[in-house]
Amino acid sequence: MAEQMKTWESRVHRVEPYTPGEQPKIQNIVKLNTNENPYPPAPAVQRVLTDFDVEQLRKYPDPTADELVSALSENYKVPKDQIFVGVGSDDVLAMSFLTFFHSKDPILFPDITYSFYDVWAGEFEIPYETIPLKEDFTIDPLDYISVEKGGHREGPIGGIVIPNPNAPTGIDGNVEMIRKIIENNPDAVVIIDEAYVDFGATSVLPLIDTYDNLMVVGTFSKSRSLAGSRIGFGFGSRKLIKYLSDVKYSFNSYTMDAITLKIGAASLGDTAYFEDTCQKIVATREAAKKRLKELGFSFPDSKTNFLFVTHEKVKATELFAALRKEGIIVRHFQQPRIDDYLRITIGTDEQMQRLYDFLEDYLKQF
Amino acid sequence: MAEQMKTWESRVHRVEPYTPGEQPKIQNIVKLNTNENPYPPAPAVQRVLTDFDVEQLRKYPDPTADELVSALSENYKVPKDQIFVGVGSDDVLAMSFLTFFHSKDPILFPDITYSFYDVWAGEFEIPYETIPLKEDFTIDPLDYISVEKGGHREGPIGGIVIPNPNAPTGIDGNVEMIRKIIENNPDAVVIIDEAYVDFGATSVLPLIDTYDNLMVVGTFSKSRSLAGSRIGFGFGSRKLIKYLSDVKYSFNSYTMDAITLKIGAASLGDTAYFEDTCQKIVATREAAKKRLKELGFSFPDSKTNFLFVTHEKVKATELFAALRKEGIIVRHFQQPRIDDYLRITIGTDEQMQRLYDFLEDYLKQF
Repeated sequence: MAEQMKTWESRVHRVEPYTPGEQPKIQNIVKLNTNENPYPPAPAVQRVLTDFDVEQLRKYPDPTADELVSALSENYKVPKDQIFVGVGSDDVLAMSFLTFFHSKDPILFPDITYSFYDVWAGEFEIPYETIPLKEDFTIDPLDYISVEKGGHREGPIGGIVIPNPNAPTGIDGNVEMIRKIIENNPDAVVIIDEAYVDFGATSVLPLIDTYDNLMVVGTFSKSRSLAGSRIGFGFGSRKLIKYLSDVKYSFNSYTMDAITLKIGAASLGDTAYFEDTCQKIVATREAAKKRLKELGFSFPDSKTNFLFVTHEKVKATELFAALRKEGIIVRHFQQPRIDDYLRITIGTDEQMQRLYDFLEDYLKQF
Repeated sequence: MAEQMKTWESRVHRVEPYTPGEQPKIQNIVKLNTNENPYPPAPAVQRVLTDFDVEQLRKYPDPTADELVSALSENYKVPKDQIFVGVGSDDVLAMSFLTFFHSKDPILFPDITYSFYDVWAGEFEIPYETIPLKEDFTIDPLDYISVEKGGHREGPIGGIVIPNPNAPTGIDGNVEMIRKIIENNPDAVVIIDEAYVDFGATSVLPLIDTYDNLMVVGTFSKSRSLAGSRIGFGFGSRKLIKYLSDVKYSFNSYTMDAITLKIGAASLGDTAYFEDTCQKIVATREAAKKRLKELGFSFPDSKTNFLFVTHEKVKATELFAALRKEGIIVRHFQQPRIDDYLRITIGTDEQMQRLYDFLEDYLKQF
């Protein structure tokens, strides 16, 4: 196919797309590769569908997404004009990159982190630099603070994005570390991506009252079992949310479909169910830490719904293939520093038992 | 609030957001302002909700949107790899602007057209020039063809976007006119926005087999009564769709939520219902043309689900206010050349009767 490039193609914005975790269509697998929640969404979500009158779909949805925003406001005790919603936190983050990182100075994020950050930087032609995590995969806040302020960073900072807890390491950087970074970066927007915060870490949300350049991002995909609904949100100062909304309304007026708005609101209404499923996952994770250690694995201490493990004897790629053959799907990243690690999502106790049973048997040979 | 601008704000991408047609919360209004379909979506859509098992929502949706894409493929007889889907045609168009209009040459579109085009150009910093419609609101194809090729256009063309039929005029430019523009513009992508094509105009879709730089965009919001679901689509050459998908997957991996994918597919499955509702709207529109002419209105000949009317005696703003007082909401654009026009969506026969009854009475005084 040695086709010649046409002139219209020279006007095309070329990018390297992100590769999401696979969604295998095989039946009866144990799917521990995309950090989905093993439990169904809150029962109220089913009722939304039962009660929904499809005649309503002929009309445009509320462009302000008020039903969902109001529910978020009540749940998180944040005024409505400090809340932004999008089609998954990816959408919220993409809009935030497009809005806030509009300068010639590079934005900073860890070398080992959510693999979409550099993709968005490419998409919007934002200069960026990755900052290596320390040997133990923790973040050194001084790496994100300029030398003038006592940090290690030479050169300007156009923005910062850090997931807390970080992915795929699972490490909770803690509020004080994050605060130190924000406090010393008043001249750029700092985005803290809290996709996994509900599994035992502490949110930096209260800091939005102090720092008007802080954006805190969340998602319904993990702790609310709604990956299939695509609901993300962000909190920030009034000013910051206004800038973000302006860019968002210049992209797409309506955001979310009418049913999803109701699903999100219904999910937020059932706090007991939410807390119960989060606690179950935390309990399973803590048991998994014990069990996997016994099996010869080591890992950073995770505060998320996954563990990032490496084995003392068996290579990650080998283990990945063996698990896959058994119908147990986990995630492997072909990337320097972490190519001997596997990210294992915390499933139900039954799913985890199947994992342990297989590993126990399989690892005997080494 | 004479607040000083902070440094982080200087890095913000500032835009003028689009203002969508209002969604008034008053009851018992006749809502003829946003070109929604007055009929409910196909009955199969309700069954999707009844049958949907919300347990599925805990998992990510299919990133390829295969169920919807397959249904579009079957319905429009276009191979799957020549189809793109998005969260409404606004999303499809936004992604297309971001992908295809990535040069220093200005893109062209009519001065009177969908008011989002210049917003996207602003969003993505794309240079653009608007081309005045002729006095009768029709498009002169020569305005979009360079002088070297016998047209009127001096200077380069970075891309072209034209709705056909055009909005808010409602005029069908016809396939041959569009073909002439595409044929003479092999060096830039030409986007034809066919949001309103199902109400009696002819699609240029077959031309994608001849011109690999043609993108044809459609929506479920109008003719399929699914504005609330946010489903849009685009057709083009394999190469063009690949470029577009790469940019899209660098923005958001998952596009649409799992329920909406099924709703879209279900809607496409009921061709009889689709054709029936489109025909009903066309019949009501043709009756409206007759009736409104009798009442002293004139308008371009519309092939859409709206009429773009001006009255021989009463100013549009005055009429707009009088209608609104009566609970009949139409759309007025405060824009040169068209500020004495109103865009009236075609509703049910009953809704239109309420409009005629009021107008008949109201216009007596002039």
